[in-house]
Amino acid sequence: MDTLQHEGGEMEWKESARWVKFEEKVEEGGERWSKPHVSTLSLHSLFELRTCLQTGCILLDLEGYSLPQIVDDIIEKQVQEGLITPEIREKISFVLLRKHRHQTKKPIHRSLADIGKSSPSSECPLSYLSHMFHLCFSDPSQCRSMNDICVTPSTDQLKNKFMKKIPRDAEASNVLIGEVDFLDKPFVAFVRLAQAATLGGLTEVPVPTRFLFVLLGPNGKTKSYNEIGRAMATLMVDDLFSDVAYKARDREDLIAGIDEFLDEVIVLPPGEWDPKIRIEPPKKLPSAEMRKSVFSLNELGQPNGNAGGGAASAEGEDLPAPHELGEELKFTGRFCGGLWLDIKRKVPGFLSDFYEGFHIQSVSAVLFIYLGCITNAITFGGLLGDATDNYQGVMESFLGTALAGVVFCLFGGQPLIILSSTGPILIFEKLLYEFSINNDIDYMEIRLWIGLHSCLQCLILVATDASYIIKYMTRFTEEGFSSLISFIFISDALKKMMSIFNYYPINRDFKPDYITSYRCECQPPGGGEPGCEGPFIFNFSALDWNQLSKKECLSFGGSLVGKSCKYVPDLAMLSFILFFGTYSMTISLKKFKASRYFPTKCRTLLADFSIIVSILVFCALDYVMSLDTPKLHVPTQIKPTRPDRGWIVMPFGKNPWWMCLASFAPALLVTILIFMDQQITAVIVNRKENKLKKGCGYHLDLFWVGILMAVCSFMGLPWYVAATVISIAHIDSLKMESESSAPGEQPQFLGVREQRLTGILVFVLTGVSVFLAPVLQYIPMPVLYGVFLYMGVASLHGIQFWERMKLFLMPAKHQPDFVFLRHVPLRRVHLFTLVQITCLAVLWILKSTVAAIIFPVMILGLMVVRKTLDLIFSQHDLAWLDDILPDKDKKKKEDEKKKKEKKKAKSEEHNNGDEEVRTTIIRCVRCS
Amino acid sequence: MDTLQHEGGEMEWKESARWVKFEEKVEEGGERWSKPHVSTLSLHSLFELRTCLQTGCILLDLEGYSLPQIVDDIIEKQVQEGLITPEIREKISFVLLRKHRHQTKKPIHRSLADIGKSSPSSECPLSYLSHMFHLCFSDPSQCRSMNDICVTPSTDQLKNKFMKKIPRDAEASNVLIGEVDFLDKPFVAFVRLAQAATLGGLTEVPVPTRFLFVLLGPNGKTKSYNEIGRAMATLMVDDLFSDVAYKARDREDLIAGIDEFLDEVIVLPPGEWDPKIRIEPPKKLPSAEMRKSVFSLNELGQPNGNAGGGAASAEGEDLPAPHELGEELKFTGRFCGGLWLDIKRKVPGFLSDFYEGFHIQSVSAVLFIYLGCITNAITFGGLLGDATDNYQGVMESFLGTALAGVVFCLFGGQPLIILSSTGPILIFEKLLYEFSINNDIDYMEIRLWIGLHSCLQCLILVATDASYIIKYMTRFTEEGFSSLISFIFISDALKKMMSIFNYYPINRDFKPDYITSYRCECQPPGGGEPGCEGPFIFNFSALDWNQLSKKECLSFGGSLVGKSCKYVPDLAMLSFILFFGTYSMTISLKKFKASRYFPTKCRTLLADFSIIVSILVFCALDYVMSLDTPKLHVPTQIKPTRPDRGWIVMPFGKNPWWMCLASFAPALLVTILIFMDQQITAVIVNRKENKLKKGCGYHLDLFWVGILMAVCSFMGLPWYVAATVISIAHIDSLKMESESSAPGEQPQFLGVREQRLTGILVFVLTGVSVFLAPVLQYIPMPVLYGVFLYMGVASLHGIQFWERMKLFLMPAKHQPDFVFLRHVPLRRVHLFTLVQITCLAVLWILKSTVAAIIFPVMILGLMVVRKTLDLIFSQHDLAWLDDILPDKDKKKKEDEKKKKEKKKAKSEEHNNGDEEVRTTIIRCVRCS
Repeated sequence: MDTLQHEGGEMEWKESARWVKFEEKVEEGGERWSKPHVSTLSLHSLFELRTCLQTGCILLDLEGYSLPQIVDDIIEKQVQEGLITPEIREKISFVLLRKHRHQTKKPIHRSLADIGKSSPSSECPLSYLSHMFHLCFSDPSQCRSMNDICVTPSTDQLKNKFMKKIPRDAEASNVLIGEVDFLDKPFVAFVRLAQAATLGGLTEVPVPTRFLFVLLGPNGKTKSYNEIGRAMATLMVDDLFSDVAYKARDREDLIAGIDEFLDEVIVLPPGEWDPKIRIEPPKKLPSAEMRKSVFSLNELGQPNGNAGGGAASAEGEDLPAPHELGEELKFTGRFCGGLWLDIKRKVPGFLSDFYEGFHIQSVSAVLFIYLGCITNAITFGGLLGDATDNYQGVMESFLGTALAGVVFCLFGGQPLIILSSTGPILIFEKLLYEFSINNDIDYMEIRLWIGLHSCLQCLILVATDASYIIKYMTRFTEEGFSSLISFIFISDALKKMMSIFNYYPINRDFKPDYITSYRCECQPPGGGEPGCEGPFIFNFSALDWNQLSKKECLSFGGSLVGKSCKYVPDLAMLSFILFFGTYSMTISLKKFKASRYFPTKCRTLLADFSIIVSILVFCALDYVMSLDTPKLHVPTQIKPTRPDRGWIVMPFGKNPWWMCLASFAPALLVTILIFMDQQITAVIVNRKENKLKKGCGYHLDLFWVGILMAVCSFMGLPWYVAATVISIAHIDSLKMESESSAPGEQPQFLGVREQRLTGILVFVLTGVSVFLAPVLQYIPMPVLYGVFLYMGVASLHGIQFWERMKLFLMPAKHQPDFVFLRHVPLRRVHLFTLVQITCLAVLWILKSTVAAIIFPVMILGLMVVRKTLDLIFSQHDLAWLDDILPDKDKKKKEDEKKKKEKKKAKSEEHNNGDEEVRTTIIRCVRCS
Repeated sequence: MDTLQHEGGEMEWKESARWVKFEEKVEEGGERWSKPHVSTLSLHSLFELRTCLQTGCILLDLEGYSLPQIVDDIIEKQVQEGLITPEIREKISFVLLRKHRHQTKKPIHRSLADIGKSSPSSECPLSYLSHMFHLCFSDPSQCRSMNDICVTPSTDQLKNKFMKKIPRDAEASNVLIGEVDFLDKPFVAFVRLAQAATLGGLTEVPVPTRFLFVLLGPNGKTKSYNEIGRAMATLMVDDLFSDVAYKARDREDLIAGIDEFLDEVIVLPPGEWDPKIRIEPPKKLPSAEMRKSVFSLNELGQPNGNAGGGAASAEGEDLPAPHELGEELKFTGRFCGGLWLDIKRKVPGFLSDFYEGFHIQSVSAVLFIYLGCITNAITFGGLLGDATDNYQGVMESFLGTALAGVVFCLFGGQPLIILSSTGPILIFEKLLYEFSINNDIDYMEIRLWIGLHSCLQCLILVATDASYIIKYMTRFTEEGFSSLISFIFISDALKKMMSIFNYYPINRDFKPDYITSYRCECQPPGGGEPGCEGPFIFNFSALDWNQLSKKECLSFGGSLVGKSCKYVPDLAMLSFILFFGTYSMTISLKKFKASRYFPTKCRTLLADFSIIVSILVFCALDYVMSLDTPKLHVPTQIKPTRPDRGWIVMPFGKNPWWMCLASFAPALLVTILIFMDQQITAVIVNRKENKLKKGCGYHLDLFWVGILMAVCSFMGLPWYVAATVISIAHIDSLKMESESSAPGEQPQFLGVREQRLTGILVFVLTGVSVFLAPVLQYIPMPVLYGVFLYMGVASLHGIQFWERMKLFLMPAKHQPDFVFLRHVPLRRVHLFTLVQITCLAVLWILKSTVAAIIFPVMILGLMVVRKTLDLIFSQHDLAWLDDILPDKDKKKKEDEKKKKEKKKAKSEEHNNGDEEVRTTIIRCVRCS
């Protein structure tokens, strides 16, 4: 934005604002671009602009290649039309061409070049001519190729920085506003070139110019001219008006375009808004198409209908988009029909699944998920080891995770899903082991058979497209499940942290003054005073009891005596600091993304790597403190945890033959368990909010889970199924946002980096963790618990159920403007939330008892509860709070159709009546 | 807002929106009020409204006392004018009076009464008539008294809740919008009653109605009518239009009012804004007066000048208000003239200084500042005790603080200032004590004489109005000083925290397994194995060395031997958790005020008490952990710390007589020190941002500080001077915000509770702390350090210097929209900030060395630096970044005056020319 100004009698054009969708001003004294903001115009200036176009000269499709030539043409036309006297011809031409000389003096240049000179604007605030130019978006079809650019070296320097923000194929509109002393009435010209031409240094960046608007007027009305120029520039960036400007045949078309613009304009009452406030660009804009359709509707005869105002759109449009799980879950009716479709859908993107993974964000995601996975593997491995007498231990857990994960991520339908051991499986294994010990059955063998049966059952489910029942799972069920899992994650993290406090008890009675009385001594089993006798009498095979460590002492049968034996100082406190520090630092770094400091790129990077940074920081703190906090210990050798088992389980030999068949029954339970866990997680991952583009593959997922089941059973590894929270964390860490195109436009969530690379890397890393042990042993467990806490909390975000729960604590007037709150009474919303909370509470209790094994079946129960909600809530309310169940869906749609038809008929009816008022109003606008 | 609707053939009016400055809609399905938002109108609806008023019937000053009568009058008029046929008279009357029956069915009622019935709006979305009414603010002069209210019981129930938000003397405007099938053209009526009358249940709250706007039209254009109604309602809440409406003599006046409104209207281009977004009410609104003045300027002949747009106001107005310290610092030239003025200013408010202190906020402020004060008293008391061999110790510090504080708060010029010991004084005392010991001079006596001299010098400064030089202290100096003090506070808090880590060292090599090897034993001075010999051999007067505590052992000359002697477990860690926890919890609770949870009152209370709550929480945590963390120990008996001194110091006797005179020189240093500390703090407290109303009293302040100096010297108590950070904290904790009047209006910062009560209570409490010792001993020191950290950080907030420092880290495009950034180039801002940083660094270094004693003199240096900045920066830049120095000020003002005159002349000149365009434009607006 170059403002032209008299400096010691000389004039120059100087850019004063630019528009790329939103307005950016040059700050008068600040010599810099303001933040992009919505242009607030005055109604006056629009009307004045309208008058200008009515009276001024309009040159459409002028053949112009250089500015002097164009200026000549303009002046010629003006003289012809008698708008100016030929005498001032030279003067105008002189003024208009002044810019060529001074164009390169751009504010950005100046701020670099003129350091030390005081700001000039304070010296001549009243006598400048402003030259606004703006860039307009235009359809590629209307644009010429950029082959006729004549780049001047000075603009070249600037182009790299600002060009990035301008869409390709953009053409510029230049608005030239100035006041001169030789004119006694305004000189107005609107020029459209036949071909976009690069007019030397006219524009800041080498974008070809298509439109030129010149307004020169007598002195003294700068402000007013300025406003007219801003109005013109704003009009030119308006999608619809620029369309009109491109296609206009004559003056009338342009005027009509302004009228259309005025029709749609949004008016703020002066008493409720301060015009000095710069309005931040909104998050979402109505698309030009929508506006167009509204507009064309208007043209058809409803000029007063939906045009403006707050409560614009019709009732039918207001309803949320119906529940769509896509065609992936259609029941094909053919054998393996779903699976076949899944494969067909997945194959074309298989290659891109790899190269699309090459991005810096992936590194962070891999490390984050990797740490989550090995923590999980170690925790579950340890628990499994306890439950099965080390038939499956930490080593098996690592190997199994790696194997299952790699295979699934390579071939699965939804490679964003992360496989892991889950709670219900753990409980099943525990019960099975107890059962087999009590009944003298070989555990590994019966487990193998159950796995095989389960695999078969999964394959049958795949073949019969059974996954289609998932579409009966609405947001109610899905959110219930995922928040339950999140709560479990959070409570597990806290429990583990608490267990550290128990493991390292703090001596609360410690008084620094009585330090002499705290000691812990090892006493030999026979008793006696070790302190006195120890060093001298060689009883009990000459042991120096005083020199023994705690473990040695206990292993030799000694006992520990003393006030400090039970206590371990500092460790619990430090663990807490590490735990809480990791969690809160991760949260803060994520939030830091929205702060103002540092360039966006730095912040995005920091936010992406927030978890890794936090982990590193607190590992470093732990290292500096060099206290003996509990660390991550991974196995260092590849061998079965229990020495008496190999890597292959034999299917026959140890159990009676009928066992093979009888294991069908428990296998059914496992199948249901796996099916539910897997598919609900898949639904959550495939949520439409995540904007996945490559489609999902429910059948293919289940197919591979089944196959892996069999493989793992043969190898005596744990069974794996999709882990909800880690999968959500995986997706979250791969989210993409658009780099905003026009300055000021909010970045849009574009989707997720759908690829197989991160998943594969995570599991490969898990596999080689055995070799990474020397590095991993520096990571304290409390830090990892902090990561778990973060994962749990983060996966609650964006769940509508959670948002609704928060509503309980908010007074109605402070509640955020959720769309469902606009349409459903608050008490209905609360009732719905309460039902969900009750369901969760019941599930939580179930999960905490042995009944956990039928937990997945209870998810089916949730679906039944949802079904009964149909009786309590109206379909209208449910449509907003939840999704409509499929069978209703159709009916609803039909209803809507009917409604719309009715409405259409009605509106057509009314188009005939009521002519008078409308025409009055139209006349109103036309005459203004 | 009641929307009238057909329900099973019956019609009723139903409120659909209400305006109290901002718009609140009834959510269609939500059955509740939306958030207040700025009404976004469509231009169309405004034009349509204009047409309606042109064609419809206007009844001004109708004598109406009941709705039926008014309706009759309206219809009569319409029939007379031939606008409707007499046949439909009955029907219209019937429709308009329907509301009486159904008016009580308000949405709020419904939402309570109709639980279980599904929302009706979804069933008949197309056929409702909306009745908007709005309340308009009006000048009391135009309002009738509220004596003719006839309250119906049903509205009574509602009034309490919503009435609070409505200003007293408000009158309502009712807008009735509906569509009926028997009309073929719109039926419009605008009624102004001669006397505001309460029309039964027409309004939601018992506010008398003054205006009535009725628009009934044929079916099918509900949306359009609705928009017209909204436009009408918005117009009626506009300050200027409602003025017009009250005074209008005929139809033309109203139309002109609308045109004026249109003139000022702010337009958002449709492509850059989504009309569905509800705009939050802005923080600050242009006042009606300002708009009026702009408007009247327009009427005088500048219709296109300053009306709208973003860069509206003239250059002259854009400059910041000049530096004003008020007349308090005028040099009177008379003896004690300033002091006399101060007293005259302070006496009238003396009584209100007490009763205005009765507020819940004061409780929090007292506790907060009290804790700050005693922590300070203990810290400085301890340091002073060390420095002066307990001539002045903790006890003296407590008594002195209480005495000086109470006297100052009772009689001082600015009772919000908190007196305390400060660093420079401490260093002076230290040097003085060393000097007197080395030269065999009695410390207390020479100190007394220095105090007396200093007191005298202060009184001379008061008598000669010397404080007026403070007005040469601009923001540059003041902010430099206060941020330096804040940094010192922060670094002190951190240093003290670190010292805990040194005091309770952590055993970093501790391995839980080797617990048996950690012990600490007391060895008798002679050596030998205490473990073996101790209990049996009765050496050294039969002491059982093993049973001795650490202190006993050391006091008997024993030595501690063992691995764990040096270490104290857990305490350092817990202290850190307490320290950091207190700080971050206070910060979070303060931030919680801006959250959405809980009603505003709860949150305000919580934010006001955030520090107390955090202290209590972490004291409780400390109590639960029951570890021996360092606690706050206050003296429990009132007696001098050193037994050989009394409460009165004798002026003569111990030192040679010439000492009394010689002490004049050091006293001068103390005087400068006190003068600078005191007055800079006073300037900071009296900042115009704090909006103090009762005026300040620089001379009176200094008078009392001088007197207290003498008193304290006589009693051998420390000297006291204003403490910057605690004073700022005091002010912060007493800030008032307006309870927002109209729904949606942002609460405004109103000022500070200026009173003497909190200060007095703080110091009375400090005085009786001796008796509070049993309670205070539960407060751990780390918690108090956390409070100190918070104080330091909080006092940095709102300092422009700090904001400018943050700018270094922000890329230009993310920088907040500070007004100085709009006017001063960024590099100049950065240069200015850098100069300040350099000054601070120099001061910091000075402060850390013995040179601290000349530290206050260096503040004078800051003022010199500021003076030299005049050479580097232009006055324009300095006006924005800093304040203009007084002598320049005048010149500047004159310059401005000249400029304005010039401009005026210019604009008058131009009013004559350029007629054509202007008249075109005016015609434009008029005809539309």
